[in-house]
Amino acid sequence: PETKLPKVGTTIFTVMSQLALEHGAVNLGQGFPDFDVPARLVEALDRAMREGRNQYSPMTGVPPLRLAISNKTERCYGYRPDPDAEVTVTSGASEAILDAVHAVVRPGDEVIVLDPCYDCYEPAIDLAGGVAVHVALDPETFAPDWAAIRAAVTPRTRMIMTNSPHNPSGAMWTADDMRQLIALLDGTGIYLLSDEVYEHIIFDGRRHESALRYPELRERAFVVSSFGKTYHCTGWKVGYCIAPPALSAEFRKVHQYNTFCTFTPAQFAFAEMIEAEPEHYEQLGAFYEAKRDRFREQLLTTKLRPLPVPGGYFQLVDYSAISDLPDAEFCRWLAIEKGVVAIPLSPFYGVPPAGQRLARLCFAKNEATLDAAIARLQAL
Amino acid sequence: PETKLPKVGTTIFTVMSQLALEHGAVNLGQGFPDFDVPARLVEALDRAMREGRNQYSPMTGVPPLRLAISNKTERCYGYRPDPDAEVTVTSGASEAILDAVHAVVRPGDEVIVLDPCYDCYEPAIDLAGGVAVHVALDPETFAPDWAAIRAAVTPRTRMIMTNSPHNPSGAMWTADDMRQLIALLDGTGIYLLSDEVYEHIIFDGRRHESALRYPELRERAFVVSSFGKTYHCTGWKVGYCIAPPALSAEFRKVHQYNTFCTFTPAQFAFAEMIEAEPEHYEQLGAFYEAKRDRFREQLLTTKLRPLPVPGGYFQLVDYSAISDLPDAEFCRWLAIEKGVVAIPLSPFYGVPPAGQRLARLCFAKNEATLDAAIARLQAL
Ligand SMILES: CSCCC(=O)C(=O)O
Ligand SMILES: CSCCC(=O)C(=O)O
Repeated sequence: PETKLPKVGTTIFTVMSQLALEHGAVNLGQGFPDFDVPARLVEALDRAMREGRNQYSPMTGVPPLRLAISNKTERCYGYRPDPDAEVTVTSGASEAILDAVHAVVRPGDEVIVLDPCYDCYEPAIDLAGGVAVHVALDPETFAPDWAAIRAAVTPRTRMIMTNSPHNPSGAMWTADDMRQLIALLDGTGIYLLSDEVYEHIIFDGRRHESALRYPELRERAFVVSSFGKTYHCTGWKVGYCIAPPALSAEFRKVHQYNTFCTFTPAQFAFAEMIEAEPEHYEQLGAFYEAKRDRFREQLLTTKLRPLPVPGGYFQLVDYSAISDLPDAEFCRWLAIEKGVVAIPLSPFYGVPPAGQRLARLCFAKNEATLDAAIARLQAL
Repeated sequence: PETKLPKVGTTIFTVMSQLALEHGAVNLGQGFPDFDVPARLVEALDRAMREGRNQYSPMTGVPPLRLAISNKTERCYGYRPDPDAEVTVTSGASEAILDAVHAVVRPGDEVIVLDPCYDCYEPAIDLAGGVAVHVALDPETFAPDWAAIRAAVTPRTRMIMTNSPHNPSGAMWTADDMRQLIALLDGTGIYLLSDEVYEHIIFDGRRHESALRYPELRERAFVVSSFGKTYHCTGWKVGYCIAPPALSAEFRKVHQYNTFCTFTPAQFAFAEMIEAEPEHYEQLGAFYEAKRDRFREQLLTTKLRPLPVPGGYFQLVDYSAISDLPDAEFCRWLAIEKGVVAIPLSPFYGVPPAGQRLARLCFAKNEATLDAAIARLQAL
């Protein structure tokens, strides 16, 4: 058939994970940890399953999980979403992003996306008949360029998608960025989709600027998060969307006819885990900060130049001292010839910037994995 | 916001399950079993989880599950889909339906749906910008009305959606229906979406007419199924789509940006279960046939008139000897006043037929549950 998504191929994450397998390369590509899920989560899931909680959950999610999400949101951001009217559990953040876009984006509507950005944003917009309007983040700092964003707003702008901590760069929005965003949206009907899946992976005492902290933002926002990154289980695919009642109602219309609900036993497990071990997510920043610092020290012994990492679990490296290949070719070479899988940045752009020589390495790995990668990278 | 899905409210299944809870009614509404998942499945899931299979699976599904689906399809229908190019694991059949529709339905395209039909079909079409063209099944037998279907085809027809065994009626397509469908589609570019989630719940020695049995159909078909009905775990949300390589490629473009993958440990569990205990799905028809027969005998002691049930796990009953209320009102009354939850048929129609007095009862329940319902129904 002719294709409805001409720009879409296989995701770069799949391509690079396959290369890793084929060539026995150390896989620092696709973002997933190689260490265990917390034991309590496994036990709680097991218990739920054996207690017979194996049928459809309510399409909004099981009540104890919506309550736990609400409680946790209040503890973290000082705002308590109504678990019944404002919290919806989804099959991961990616389903939530597709649902939110389909809930409000109409054919011809424009959606501002800030490049580089996660590769599922634009296909969701395309499928809804919308038009992705790409605005570049600062090429050095990956901070939002407010003049460029303001210039991209038109009467057709329906939504802006933001992501902090940022994949792929780790950049984090500041309180000043949030004020700029509030000023930009004030008096418009533009919705906000705030992708906050790395909300707990934050370093150096920074504060996560959740859209939920700001009344002017949360009244128009779909705030999307997920447990995959927070609880080391990217394959469990439980996420959620917090949005005001009227937006949640539209969101749920899509969600109930997309996946309807997500794996019920895991929902009970997350409900228990969130309430019983808040220290897990409170200490997640420190856990990953140690990994970041150690990995950075090691990278400084290679010809790669590590960029600053304010949050998230990805380390960008500038490889221009080693190679002048475009990033996709460099990463193929690195995987096949040198045995380390990284992710090129160009797939995160509508139009990749010419001459950028950056690759993304995932440091959500055991020390042995990172050490093995470093040994290979030192030989570059 | 103005709504993109003006026709969509909360699903009837959610509404009626809530009524059941509020009024302590016996819930024969939403289709889910009240008995256990097979033990092997629980053990295998547990093992996968403890072995650390908790990260993203390949977006197409884990290889052993795609292989098991392929093997099972060959055993059941004599056609072996390529596990790499033709089988995609999804978060339940409902995600698969949305993905298939989004893969090929363009704005303005028409999709033929046969009423009554499952309530997620039309919203998926609406979200893709398509137009659902409703054609009624025979009001007595729920067999396809081929003259009416032929009359509904236009140059804009992009897809036809079929469902056998049929929800809500249990009707099953015959070999003659399949020949009629082949003749209808021959020489057109119309795609087939065949929803076969009740494929193993078939009675009285009937044969399930999977679209996969017919080369002329499978070359243009998205065949969707799920493990929820087959393995008594509607809340596990693992389904799949079998389609030829070119269609699977388009399907995967949507799927990879919708949920990307589904709960990984369950995928390994289903792979093991399918291969190790084929007798489970082979004997599922007999298991449910006994329930159907017993429930029917019991219903004959009430004023409800049970219709024939060729397959699936729903029993339609004609309540016209009891009440002349429209079905939605009758079912509310039955839940609130009489303590039994049934599902009205009108939500399964684009335009519900006037004067129909049918309700749907789910008999995927333990004998005690069905006995409790019957005791209340006898008092009608
Ligand atoms: C769903 S594969 C992508 C995983 C991820 O979040 C990333 O690597 O950026
Ligand atoms: C997802 S709720 C509906 C369950 C079902 O298949 C039915 O009751 O028809």
